[in-house]
Amino acid sequence: GIISFEEMERKDLRELLKKVKQGKISIPEALEELAQLPYKDLGFAKLDIHRQFRKGLPETLFCKGKTPEQIESIARELFSQKIPFIATKASKESYEAIKKAVKEARYHPEASLVIVGKTKEQKGLVAVVTAGTSDIPIAEEAALTAEFMGSKVKRLYDIGIAGSHRIFPHLKDLRKAKAIVVVAGMEGALPSLIAGLVASPVIGVPTSIGYGTSFGGITPLLAMLNSCAEGLAVVNIDNGFGAGYLASLINLQSTS
Amino acid sequence: GIISFEEMERKDLRELLKKVKQGKISIPEALEELAQLPYKDLGFAKLDIHRQFRKGLPETLFCKGKTPEQIESIARELFSQKIPFIATKASKESYEAIKKAVKEARYHPEASLVIVGKTKEQKGLVAVVTAGTSDIPIAEEAALTAEFMGSKVKRLYDIGIAGSHRIFPHLKDLRKAKAIVVVAGMEGALPSLIAGLVASPVIGVPTSIGYGTSFGGITPLLAMLNSCAEGLAVVNIDNGFGAGYLASLINLQSTS
Amino acid sequence: GIISFEEMERKDLRELLKKVKQGKISIPEALEELAQLPYKDLGFAKLDIHRQFRKGLPETLFCKGKTPEQIESIARELFSQKIPFIATKASKESYEAIKKAVKEARYHPEASLVIVGKTKEQKGLVAVVTAGTSDIPIAEEAALTAEFMGSKVKRLYDIGIAGSHRIFPHLKDLRKAKAIVVVAGMEGALPSLIAGLVASPVIGVPTSIGYGTSFGGITPLLAMLNSCAEGLAVVNIDNGFGAGYLASLINLQSTS
Amino acid sequence: GIISFEEMERKDLRELLKKVKQGKISIPEALEELAQLPYKDLGFAKLDIHRQFRKGLPETLFCKGKTPEQIESIARELFSQKIPFIATKASKESYEAIKKAVKEARYHPEASLVIVGKTKEQKGLVAVVTAGTSDIPIAEEAALTAEFMGSKVKRLYDIGIAGSHRIFPHLKDLRKAKAIVVVAGMEGALPSLIAGLVASPVIGVPTSIGYGTSFGGITPLLAMLNSCAEGLAVVNIDNGFGAGYLASLINLQSTS
Amino acid sequence: GIISFEEMERKDLRELLKKVKQGKISIPEALEELAQLPYKDLGFAKLDIHRQFRKGLPETLFCKGKTPEQIESIARELFSQKIPFIATKASKESYEAIKKAVKEARYHPEASLVIVGKTKEQKGLVAVVTAGTSDIPIAEEAALTAEFMGSKVKRLYDIGIAGSHRIFPHLKDLRKAKAIVVVAGMEGALPSLIAGLVASPVIGVPTSIGYGTSFGGITPLLAMLNSCAEGLAVVNIDNGFGAGYLASLINLQSTS
Amino acid sequence: GIISFEEMERKDLRELLKKVKQGKISIPEALEELAQLPYKDLGFAKLDIHRQFRKGLPETLFCKGKTPEQIESIARELFSQKIPFIATKASKESYEAIKKAVKEARYHPEASLVIVGKTKEQKGLVAVVTAGTSDIPIAEEAALTAEFMGSKVKRLYDIGIAGSHRIFPHLKDLRKAKAIVVVAGMEGALPSLIAGLVASPVIGVPTSIGYGTSFGGITPLLAMLNSCAEGLAVVNIDNGFGAGYLASLINLQSTS
Amino acid sequence: GIISFEEMERKDLRELLKKVKQGKISIPEALEELAQLPYKDLGFAKLDIHRQFRKGLPETLFCKGKTPEQIESIARELFSQKIPFIATKASKESYEAIKKAVKEARYHPEASLVIVGKTKEQKGLVAVVTAGTSDIPIAEEAALTAEFMGSKVKRLYDIGIAGSHRIFPHLKDLRKAKAIVVVAGMEGALPSLIAGLVASPVIGVPTSIGYGTSFGGITPLLAMLNSCAEGLAVVNIDNGFGAGYLASLINLQSTS
Amino acid sequence: GIISFEEMERKDLRELLKKVKQGKISIPEALEELAQLPYKDLGFAKLDIHRQFRKGLPETLFCKGKTPEQIESIARELFSQKIPFIATKASKESYEAIKKAVKEARYHPEASLVIVGKTKEQKGLVAVVTAGTSDIPIAEEAALTAEFMGSKVKRLYDIGIAGSHRIFPHLKDLRKAKAIVVVAGMEGALPSLIAGLVASPVIGVPTSIGYGTSFGGITPLLAMLNSCAEGLAVVNIDNGFGAGYLASLINLQSTS
Repeated sequence: GIISFEEMERKDLRELLKKVKQGKISIPEALEELAQLPYKDLGFAKLDIHRQFRKGLPETLFCKGKTPEQIESIARELFSQKIPFIATKASKESYEAIKKAVKEARYHPEASLVIVGKTKEQKGLVAVVTAGTSDIPIAEEAALTAEFMGSKVKRLYDIGIAGSHRIFPHLKDLRKAKAIVVVAGMEGALPSLIAGLVASPVIGVPTSIGYGTSFGGITPLLAMLNSCAEGLAVVNIDNGFGAGYLASLINLQSTS
Repeated sequence: GIISFEEMERKDLRELLKKVKQGKISIPEALEELAQLPYKDLGFAKLDIHRQFRKGLPETLFCKGKTPEQIESIARELFSQKIPFIATKASKESYEAIKKAVKEARYHPEASLVIVGKTKEQKGLVAVVTAGTSDIPIAEEAALTAEFMGSKVKRLYDIGIAGSHRIFPHLKDLRKAKAIVVVAGMEGALPSLIAGLVASPVIGVPTSIGYGTSFGGITPLLAMLNSCAEGLAVVNIDNGFGAGYLASLINLQSTS
Repeated sequence: GIISFEEMERKDLRELLKKVKQGKISIPEALEELAQLPYKDLGFAKLDIHRQFRKGLPETLFCKGKTPEQIESIARELFSQKIPFIATKASKESYEAIKKAVKEARYHPEASLVIVGKTKEQKGLVAVVTAGTSDIPIAEEAALTAEFMGSKVKRLYDIGIAGSHRIFPHLKDLRKAKAIVVVAGMEGALPSLIAGLVASPVIGVPTSIGYGTSFGGITPLLAMLNSCAEGLAVVNIDNGFGAGYLASLINLQSTS
Repeated sequence: GIISFEEMERKDLRELLKKVKQGKISIPEALEELAQLPYKDLGFAKLDIHRQFRKGLPETLFCKGKTPEQIESIARELFSQKIPFIATKASKESYEAIKKAVKEARYHPEASLVIVGKTKEQKGLVAVVTAGTSDIPIAEEAALTAEFMGSKVKRLYDIGIAGSHRIFPHLKDLRKAKAIVVVAGMEGALPSLIAGLVASPVIGVPTSIGYGTSFGGITPLLAMLNSCAEGLAVVNIDNGFGAGYLASLINLQSTS
Repeated sequence: GIISFEEMERKDLRELLKKVKQGKISIPEALEELAQLPYKDLGFAKLDIHRQFRKGLPETLFCKGKTPEQIESIARELFSQKIPFIATKASKESYEAIKKAVKEARYHPEASLVIVGKTKEQKGLVAVVTAGTSDIPIAEEAALTAEFMGSKVKRLYDIGIAGSHRIFPHLKDLRKAKAIVVVAGMEGALPSLIAGLVASPVIGVPTSIGYGTSFGGITPLLAMLNSCAEGLAVVNIDNGFGAGYLASLINLQSTS
Repeated sequence: GIISFEEMERKDLRELLKKVKQGKISIPEALEELAQLPYKDLGFAKLDIHRQFRKGLPETLFCKGKTPEQIESIARELFSQKIPFIATKASKESYEAIKKAVKEARYHPEASLVIVGKTKEQKGLVAVVTAGTSDIPIAEEAALTAEFMGSKVKRLYDIGIAGSHRIFPHLKDLRKAKAIVVVAGMEGALPSLIAGLVASPVIGVPTSIGYGTSFGGITPLLAMLNSCAEGLAVVNIDNGFGAGYLASLINLQSTS
Repeated sequence: GIISFEEMERKDLRELLKKVKQGKISIPEALEELAQLPYKDLGFAKLDIHRQFRKGLPETLFCKGKTPEQIESIARELFSQKIPFIATKASKESYEAIKKAVKEARYHPEASLVIVGKTKEQKGLVAVVTAGTSDIPIAEEAALTAEFMGSKVKRLYDIGIAGSHRIFPHLKDLRKAKAIVVVAGMEGALPSLIAGLVASPVIGVPTSIGYGTSFGGITPLLAMLNSCAEGLAVVNIDNGFGAGYLASLINLQSTS
Repeated sequence: GIISFEEMERKDLRELLKKVKQGKISIPEALEELAQLPYKDLGFAKLDIHRQFRKGLPETLFCKGKTPEQIESIARELFSQKIPFIATKASKESYEAIKKAVKEARYHPEASLVIVGKTKEQKGLVAVVTAGTSDIPIAEEAALTAEFMGSKVKRLYDIGIAGSHRIFPHLKDLRKAKAIVVVAGMEGALPSLIAGLVASPVIGVPTSIGYGTSFGGITPLLAMLNSCAEGLAVVNIDNGFGAGYLASLINLQSTS
C-alpha cells in the first residue's frame, strides 16, 4: 500500500509489548496501559481507518472559505501521501493554488471541480439527470465525481417536469442504472417523478437556481423530501459532488 | 332585483338635488357638498356595487374564529336579503348555527361547507383533480363551490405524481376544461405536471396533509409557485373554496 | 403546420405496422411491442403534444442561470423549428446571445424580455395594474407577454393602497377586463382590494422591491395568498411573465 | 398619593446624611458611599419611579404561563397597594384566581380581560376598527383597555379590505380620533388603507385567526410593517391590550 | 390654498347639476347618475382628500427600485404642485435626479434623505434615541423627518442596553418628550427598556446592522414586538422615516 | 403472474391492429391513431409498468389524513389484486379498518405499521441505528420495512453522539452492511459521524422528538444535509419507512 | 470505585498479551491485532471514559418521547450501577415509572425533574435569575440541577427588563456569583442587561412562554444570541437543566 | 487607577452634601433631592461601574456599520482614557482609522481584530478547537481575545466530525482546559461530540461558512443548541470574540 505499515508503528506500543514479552511489566499493568491507548494516541488508529475501509476512495477538499494558501498546502499534503482527491466548489483561483502543488491537477470549470489522481476503470451504471439546462453544472459535479470513482455514467440532461413526456423515452436507461442522480431546481418534482417510474435508488439534488420563492433551493429541497415516491433520498442544495459520490458507492457495491 | 332602487335612495342626496332644482343653493355650493358625498355616506354606494357587479355571485361566510352566535346572525341577515352564500370551514357546530337561521341550509361535512341558495344550471367545464385520497376534502370544497356557482364539474381524484402515468388517460378531459383546479399536498408537483400537458388555466391548491417538512402545506405551496410550467396560479393552503370560486369565474366567462 | 406530420413519423412504428399488415408478426406480438412503445420513444409523442394543444402558444426561455452559449443554442433551435418564444429575465448579455441566433429578436430591457415571433392580432382585454412605480418592470413583463400572445392590454400603473381612492376612477375599465394582473410589493394589498371590487379573475404578482421585512417579496406574496377577497390567485414573486401568460390564456378563451 | 413619601425613606440614606450633618464622616467619604447607593438599594428608586411617571396608569398582569396561585398572589399585592390593574389573556380560571384576591374584579370573557380599579372619566377619542368579525375579541381587548384608562372609544367593527367601500362612510369619525387601533388578520391590509386616508396616528394589531399561510398572524404582521402609508406602527400579534394602552397614552396627552 | 377649488371642478358634475337646475333631467335620473359618480371619476375626490386632511403634511418619495428618470419626473410634478416632500432611501444618484427637477432640494447623505420644502417652525418635543453608533443613519432619518414636519427634536445617541446605566441621566428629557423614537439593532432591547421607564409613546425602529442571527434586523424587530413594556409600537426594519413621521404626528397633535 | 396479460389487452388497440392487417385503414391513418394512443388510454400502460419494474415490491398506503372507510377500501383493492403492501403512520383505528378488509394484516403498533403479504427470505445486510431511545419507533418503521422487502436487518439502538465512544464497538457490523439507516433527533449528528467511519451508503432519518429549537426535526434534518461526511443522503423527518425502503433497494441489488 | 477494574477486563486482550508473553505471536502480529482493538470492542473503553472524567457528575435521563417502560428500565440500570441521575422534562407518569425502579427518587413537579442520588455539599455561588413569574419552572430546573451537583444557589426571580430599576439592588449578589443563569421569555433582554453590569459568566435560557411573535421562544433566543454585552452564552429554549449543569461546572471549577 | 476618583466627583453632589453639613437644607429636603440623583446624572455612576467590576477587562469596538470617522473617534477616546480595547470585525480600512488615533494598534487580519493595550501574563488554559480549516478565522478571533485577556490558549484546528477519530488523541489536552471554545460550521456537531467526552465547560461557535442549507450558520447554531451533551452553551454565529471573551472569564476565575 501507499502507506507502509512501518510508518504507522508507534514506539510506545511496540515498547509496551516488548516489556510484556520480557516480563518487565505484568499483564494487569499492561491491560491498564492499553485501556488508555486509543485515547493517548489515535494518530495510529487514524491511519488504520483509512487503510481499512477507504481503499481507493478519493478524499475531498471543499474549497469555499479556504484561502489559496490553505488549499495549496492541503493539496500538497494529500498528493505527497498519494491520496487521490476531488476539490469541490473550486474557483479558478482555487485551481491555480492546487496546480502549484500538483501539476497534473485537472480542472473542470463547468462543475467547479479539480480532480487529482487516476480515473478508475468504469463499471456498472449511474444515471445523472437534470430537469433544466441551468442544473447542468451541479449535474456535471455529480457525473465527474462518479466517473472518477469508477462508475460508468449516463447523462440525461434537460428532462423537466413541465414537459414530463420527455422522460418516457429514457425509462429503459433509467431502469438499468444502479443509482440515479436527479438534479432539479424550481419546484424540484423530477426526482419524485422518476422514483415513481423506476426501482433503482434515486438521489435528489436540489439546485439554487431560480428566483422569488425558490429561496436558493429550499423549495426543491422540500419538494424532494416530501416526495410520495419510494426509493428517493436527498442531499444538500447544490451538492452534486455528494450525490455523485453516494451514487457511485451504491453502483460499485452493486456491480463488483 | 332583490334590493329595490328605492331602498338605496338617500334623503340627503335627494334633498340636495331638490335644493339645486329649486335654486335654494348655488351650483358651486352644491359642488362643494357633493365633493364630500362619497365619504359622507357610502352605504349608498356600497349596495350599488353589489347590484352592479355581483349579479348572482354568492357571498362567503368564513366560519373559523367566529362564535356560533355571530355565524347565526350573519346567516340570518344574508338570508333576509336573499343573498345566496357559502359558509366555509364549517364545523358541525357552525352548521347548526346556520340552520337556526336558515332551515334549508345544506351541509357537506366532507368539505366543511354549508350552502344556502339555489344551485344554478351548470355550464362549461371545470376539472377538479387531486394527487391523493387525502386531498379529497379540499377538492370537494372546490367542486361544490364551482357547481353551486353554475359550473359543470369533472372530478378526477387520486392521480399522483409518483404514478404519473395515471394522468395520461385523462388528458382529453383535462384539455376540454375551461379551468382546472389541482389539489395536492406532499411535494405538490401535480399542478405543474398538468399545466405542462394542457393549455387550460390551472389553479393549484396546496393542502396541509403530510408530516415532517411538509410544514402544513408550505412545501406544496412553494413547489406550485416555482413551477416551470406556464398557465398556473396558486391559492392559499387548503383554500379549496377560493380555487373553486376562481375556476368558476373563469369557466363562466369563457362559456356564456 | 410548421412541423409536418411526416417529420414526426418513426421508422420503428411504421415498420411494425407494415409487419402486421404483411402478417409477419401476430397481433398478440404486436400488442406486446406496442405496450412498450410510448416508453421506448416518446420523441414521437413529444412533438405530437405540442402540435395538439399548443397551437401558436409561445415557448419560454428562462435566461437566469444559463450561459450565453446555452441561450444562443436554445434560441437557434427554437427559431429553426419556427416556434415563437419569449426569453424572460434576460440581461443585455442574454439578448445579445439570442441576437446571434435570431437577428429579428426584439429586446424590452425595461421588462428584461426578448421576444421572437410575430405578435398576434389583439383581442379581448387584460388589465395590468401596479401599486407603485417600482413595480412597473414586472408589470411590463406581464403586459408585453399578454400582447404577444394576442391579448389587448390596458395598463393602469401606480394605483397604490395607501391612496386607495385612486382606484375608483378605473373601476369601469377593470370590470371590463377578462383577466386582471395586479403587481404589488410592500404590503401587497392591491390585488385583494381590486378583487373585492370586480368580478373578473385577478392574478396577483408579488414583487421583490422593498426593504426590511418585505423579505424580497414574501410579505406581499403572503398577503395575496391570505386575501379575504374571492377570485384571486397568485404567481411567484416577480413572475410577471407567468401572470401575463395565464391572464392571456383566460382572456383568449373568454373572447374567441 | 397612595404610597406616602415616608414609606419610601430608607434608614441608610437618612443615617448617612445625619452623619454628614454631624460631621461624623467627611464629604469625600460620603461621596464614596453615595456612589454605591443606587446599586445598593434601588427598591427606593423603584417606588420613586412609579410615583413620578405612572400617576394613575394601570399595571398589567399577563396571565398566560402563570399558575392560579401566582395570579392570585400578584393580584392580592397590587390590590393591597391600591394599584389599578388589567389582567390580560385571562381564562375563566385566571379570573377566579383574581376574584379570590379582589372581590370587585370585573371579567370581560370576550376579551379575556379582568379589570380591577375605578374606570376614569372618558376624554378625547380613540377609534377601534376591525377588518372582520373574528377580530372582535382582540379589538375589545384594546377598546376596554383604552376606556379603563380614560379614553372615549368609538368601535367600528367588520370594515374589511375585500369590501373597501365600507370604510368611506366612517372617514369623518376616523379623522376625529386622536389615535386609531386597527385590528386585522388574513392579509392585514386595513391599517394601511386607513392610514392612507387619515392623518391620525394608527396602531395596527395583527390577529392570529386564519389558516394556511396566515401563519398565526405573521402574514398580517408583515403586511402592516411593510405598509406604504405613513403614520402607522404595529404591536405584537393579538396584542389588543398593548394597542389600546398606547392609543390611550397618545389620546390622553393630545386631549388634556 | 395651493390648489384652487376651481382646478378641481369637473365639467361632468357641474353639467349634471345644471341639467337638474334646468329641469333637463329628473331627480331620480340624477340620483342614478350620481350613484356612479365617485367611481366614474375620483380624480376629483382624490384632490379633495389631500386638501381635507393632509394640510401641510409632506409627501413621500421612496427612491429604492425607481429609475433616476422616474424619480426626477415625480419630483418635478410634486414641486410644480407646490407639495413639500421627503425622498427616502435616496442615493447620491437619486439626489441628482431630484436636483434636476428642484434646484433647492437639500440632501442629507448620512440619512439618505432629500428634503424639498420649507421646514416648519418647531414645536413640542420628539426624542430620538439610538442604542449604538451604527444606528445613527436611521435615527437621523427619523430626526430630520420630524424636524421638517415641525417637531422639536432631541437626539440621544449611543445609549445601549449593554451599558444600561447610561440611560438614566437622560430620563428627564425622555419623560418630557411627546413621542420617543428608539432605534436599535442587535438584540433590540432598548425600546423596551425605555418604555418601561417613561409614560410617553415609544416608537421602536429595528435596524439591519449586525451579523449572524441578527438576520438583517429580524431579531431586534421580534424583540421589540415581544416587549413586556406597555406604550411601545414598532415600524419596519430601518424605517427611520416612518418612525419620525408618526412620532411627529403624535407630537404635533399633543402640542398644538 | 398475478395479473394475466389477457386482462391488460385493450379492445381498441387489438381492433386497430386487426384493421391494419385487414387493410381497412392505411398505415398513415393507423400512425395518426397510434400517436394518440398512450394518452387515450394508459390504463393499459399503467399495469404494464407495474408488471415491468415492480416485481414483488410492496405498495404503500399512507394512512394519515385518510378516513377509515378510504383505508379499508384501498386495502381491499390491493389485497384483491394480490399486491403486498405496507400501511404507514397507521393508528389503531387505521389498523382496524385494514383488518376488516384483510384478516391476516399484521400490526406493529410501536412502528405504526400494518403489513400485508408474505415476508420474503432475508438476504444481505441493512443496519438500522438510532441515536437515542426516543428514535426507536421510527427505526422500527425502517427495520420492519426492510425485513418485509427481503433484507436481513441488524438493529443497533441508542448509540448517541454525546457518547460517541459507544459507536466504535459496532464498526465491524456497520462496515458489513450494504446500507445503513441512521435515525437521530436533537442535533442529528450521528449519521454524519457514522458516514465518516464507514464506506457503506448511509440514509439519515431526522426525527421530530425534542423541544425548543429542534423545530419538530428541522434541526437534525439540516444537520444531516450539511454533513461534511461523504456517502450520506437524507429522507423526510420521521420517514422511517422511506429510509427502510431505499436501504432495502440498495441492499437487494447489491446482494442478489 | 463503583465499577471494579476486573469487570472491565476483556478476555481477548488478556489472551493477546499472554500470547505475546509466551512468544506465541510476534510483536508485529500483536501490533496488527492491537490496531483493530479499539474498534473491536470499545465497551471496554466506554466504561473507562466514565471512570476517567465523570467522577461524580450525574447522568441525565431526558423523559420526553420515551415510554414509561423505557424510562423505568433506564432508571433501574443507572441505579443498579450506583450512578446518580436527573430525569428532565419528567411528567407525573415519568416520575411514577422511575419510582417503580428507585423508591427514593425525589420529584420536583414545578421543574419537571426527578432526582436520584445524594445531593452534594454546596459550594461557591450560582445565581439563577428570571425576568418574569412564568419563567420560574425553567429557573427551578436550573437551580435544582446546580444544587444537586454541589453548587450553592441564589434565586432572584421576577426582575424584568420592563422595570429595569429592579435589577440594581441585586447587583452585589450577581457580582459575587461564579456563574449566573438568566431565564427570560418575551423579548429576552435580561441576560444582556445583566451581562452588561457584571463580570461573571452569564448563561441565558430563553423560554417558550409568550404569544404571537415570541414563536415558542425563538425571539428571546435570537435576542440573547445578538446581545451586545460580552460574557454571555446561550442554551436551548426551556433548557433550564443544561444551563444549571453548565453554570455548576463553571462554579465548581472556580471554587474548589 | 487610570481614572482618578477626583475626576468622578460631581459638583452637584458635593454641593448638596455641603449644604447638609452647613444646615442649609433639611435632611428630608436632601433625601428628596437624592432620590432623583442617580437619574439626574449617572455619568457619575457610569464610571463607578467600570472602576468596580471591570478591572482590566478590555472594551469592545464593533466595527461593522461604523464609518472610519466614528471608529477613529471612539478609538481616540478609549485610548485617551487608557482603556485597553479590541476592535472586532475590523476591515483594513477600520484598522487604518484606528491607527490614526493609536499608533501602536496591532492588526490581526486573519481574525479581523485590532488590539490596543498590553497583553496580560497568561494563566490557566483555554482550548480553541475547529472542525475545519475554514473555521480558523473565527477561532483566531477567539484565541487572540482570550490571550489578550490573560488566558493561555491551546489551538487544536481541523478536528472534524467526519473523521471523529482525530479527536481522541487530544482528549487529554481538552480535559485539562478550564474552558473550551469549539468553532464549527456545516452540521456543527463537534461541540456536542467534545462536550460528551470532557467535563470542562464548552462554548460552541457556529460559523457561516458553507452553502445550501447551512443558511449562513443557522444549521450549526441549531445543532449546537440541540446538543444532547451537557456542559455546552452557544454564542452567535461567527462570534469568535464573544466565545473567547467568555471562555477567558471562566478560565481566569477558575485559575486565579
